[in-house]
Amino acid sequence: MSQPSSSNNKNYFISLEEAITLSKTIKIPILEEVLPIEKTQNRILFEDVFSKVDDPPFDNSSMDGYAVIYSDTLTATEIEPTELEIIDVVLAGSTPLKELTPGYAIKIMTGAPIPNGADSIIMIEKTKKLENKVFLYSPSFQNYIRKKGENLTKNKLILEKGTHISPRVIGLLATMGYSKISVTKQLKISIIPTGDELISPGEKLLPGQIYESNSFALEGLIKELGHIPIRHESISDSIEDLRKELQKANTTSDLIITSGGVSMGDFDLVRKIMETEGEILFWRIKIKPGSPPLFGKWNGVPIFGLPGNPVSSHVVFQILISQWIKFVTGAKGPKEKIIKARLLEDIKPKKDFLILTRVIVENNGTEMVAFTNTHQGSGNSYNLVAANALAILPPEKNSSKNQIIDVLLF
Amino acid sequence: MSQPSSSNNKNYFISLEEAITLSKTIKIPILEEVLPIEKTQNRILFEDVFSKVDDPPFDNSSMDGYAVIYSDTLTATEIEPTELEIIDVVLAGSTPLKELTPGYAIKIMTGAPIPNGADSIIMIEKTKKLENKVFLYSPSFQNYIRKKGENLTKNKLILEKGTHISPRVIGLLATMGYSKISVTKQLKISIIPTGDELISPGEKLLPGQIYESNSFALEGLIKELGHIPIRHESISDSIEDLRKELQKANTTSDLIITSGGVSMGDFDLVRKIMETEGEILFWRIKIKPGSPPLFGKWNGVPIFGLPGNPVSSHVVFQILISQWIKFVTGAKGPKEKIIKARLLEDIKPKKDFLILTRVIVENNGTEMVAFTNTHQGSGNSYNLVAANALAILPPEKNSSKNQIIDVLLF
Repeated sequence: MSQPSSSNNKNYFISLEEAITLSKTIKIPILEEVLPIEKTQNRILFEDVFSKVDDPPFDNSSMDGYAVIYSDTLTATEIEPTELEIIDVVLAGSTPLKELTPGYAIKIMTGAPIPNGADSIIMIEKTKKLENKVFLYSPSFQNYIRKKGENLTKNKLILEKGTHISPRVIGLLATMGYSKISVTKQLKISIIPTGDELISPGEKLLPGQIYESNSFALEGLIKELGHIPIRHESISDSIEDLRKELQKANTTSDLIITSGGVSMGDFDLVRKIMETEGEILFWRIKIKPGSPPLFGKWNGVPIFGLPGNPVSSHVVFQILISQWIKFVTGAKGPKEKIIKARLLEDIKPKKDFLILTRVIVENNGTEMVAFTNTHQGSGNSYNLVAANALAILPPEKNSSKNQIIDVLLF
Repeated sequence: MSQPSSSNNKNYFISLEEAITLSKTIKIPILEEVLPIEKTQNRILFEDVFSKVDDPPFDNSSMDGYAVIYSDTLTATEIEPTELEIIDVVLAGSTPLKELTPGYAIKIMTGAPIPNGADSIIMIEKTKKLENKVFLYSPSFQNYIRKKGENLTKNKLILEKGTHISPRVIGLLATMGYSKISVTKQLKISIIPTGDELISPGEKLLPGQIYESNSFALEGLIKELGHIPIRHESISDSIEDLRKELQKANTTSDLIITSGGVSMGDFDLVRKIMETEGEILFWRIKIKPGSPPLFGKWNGVPIFGLPGNPVSSHVVFQILISQWIKFVTGAKGPKEKIIKARLLEDIKPKKDFLILTRVIVENNGTEMVAFTNTHQGSGNSYNLVAANALAILPPEKNSSKNQIIDVLLF
């Protein structure tokens, strides 16, 4: 029976873990760029970030009310209110000028610095004002003072290099006083779909043809990871055309992704050209869907050869290529959302294979449950849209109804 | 004691559900635009989408191998292989020219159309070829034919108006033959931070000042939802400046979001100007953090007044404003990821209040667990970065250790 013909292919049909480990032996140079913080969303920090400030920078009020001396307020009740004379008003952004002494109060707004002498705040809702007097109907409260540095300490390491930049991280960078920051430069990633049967969406479909779709979905996944896709038009099954396109991609890209042409057939030209002219690090992985991928180098540039089936292509990007991209860029995120769910049906195991079934995961009010809803063919791109997660079913376990499994949320 | 002074404010201090319901009574016109599919990521479909194709468009092979007649292969074994004569090769993208009759085989590549007369495929790995003969060592397999239309039926409704466009949806649009599609126009959303104490990150911090950060985080959240933020510089606590800025935002924006100035204090100018010159639909919500928000209209344009605390501002955007934006744009996604997790500690309830605690949610190998890790002050923007989810703790329930709760993943 036919055997893999690759001469330089030592790592044939390996596990996903082996594939991920091997892939990490190929690295690429990563550059940095400094950007205004508002342009860094979904990028990766290229430097450790230390706070430029104490946050809060000074003791301040967390309420609108009156700065008072706590011991002045202890006897205040609804029936016998305490009366204090208002000697000043401190607004947010201003500096208190007067010191507080017993018997007096200073009106204070949320965020305003605590005047010297004050140790407590009473909320405005708990008071009544009459001319320059304030009446307290209950004791004041010491928790309404936000202490200098209780959130962030000046010069302390707050965010590590490799942090994925969410809107929350951008907010924190601003809080710490940064208007710009160093981030990892985006990778340029070429996508080359191959196959005589492919034509571009929008054109007229002739017999035997299908619309090329993988490059569009991969382009989206690359953008989601914060990098720059370079989508090529699909090329025919010709070694010359493929070589020309790889050469073009080679000069512009940090990584090349091909789609199709990596199986065992005579016309699987990506595999063939990599066997004869490239370096194959591994070929084929024990996963379902998506067993045919290869990884190696073409003329010095890393190249992932993805299978042509749209589901396989998508799944292999998510579980293998995205891991590699995050590894080489030092990115600690975006983190995969892998949660537990109860499987509501039996899923047929395949010996030695990691099964990645497209499922719907739902919060049923009591627990998270997972079930399939569409035909699971790896050619079925509708199935990826109808599902919202990938069930991760390891080879050594049986995946039966009611078992608690891991699912990767899309 | 002080009471809310608003004259036109009937809906004071309501529940989150009431706030969401009320907010939906204010709508805005939503426009559409037609874009190439590769530019529609994270946008919302403005039309129902019907498939232009059957997918697959024709019966085709899911394997590289030989198209055969199943009954010809039944007796094939390792010891007594079946021998068939190869009369043709069908590649993906081509049209089979010959009809298959008993005793013959046609070599076929993945994706290639099934020749007339063939009803089965045998994988290339299960065969041996000698000149124009193929030897079969096991029966062929009928599942390796992908049937015309098994994934998508031509002219059938596949994606509904309002669908959020992920990379998977873009792939499906391509598969269905669409090169461009109608999507919802992005909303222009002004963000106006207010407060005398605010200065821009990068400037020198004077006593009493803090860096303005809310507008940066809100800008990021708006981009995540696929809309266009217009970030204004922070303005001082002056009714004239606020009015001027609102007027500016009014002419350019579909929605205005202010930050700060919505509490009960004398210098809460957003609330004040809305009471006298705007229309307040509701003010204050029974949630913690984030109770002060208001919603209404300023000169015909919807306006959300967010509290100035960074955590409150962020949380209220996520649980209220994003709901409103999705509602008015008819967006069915991106879907919130609300999952179940076991709470590892007691969280202090507050009567009638929905508590939204920042937590870390982890897959501990057995189940999902949630716990707090930082000081929960609503001024602590570090807390939003250290956490990866919001615990949703409804008012009627006690939130105690070991309880299973809902958490919203960031």
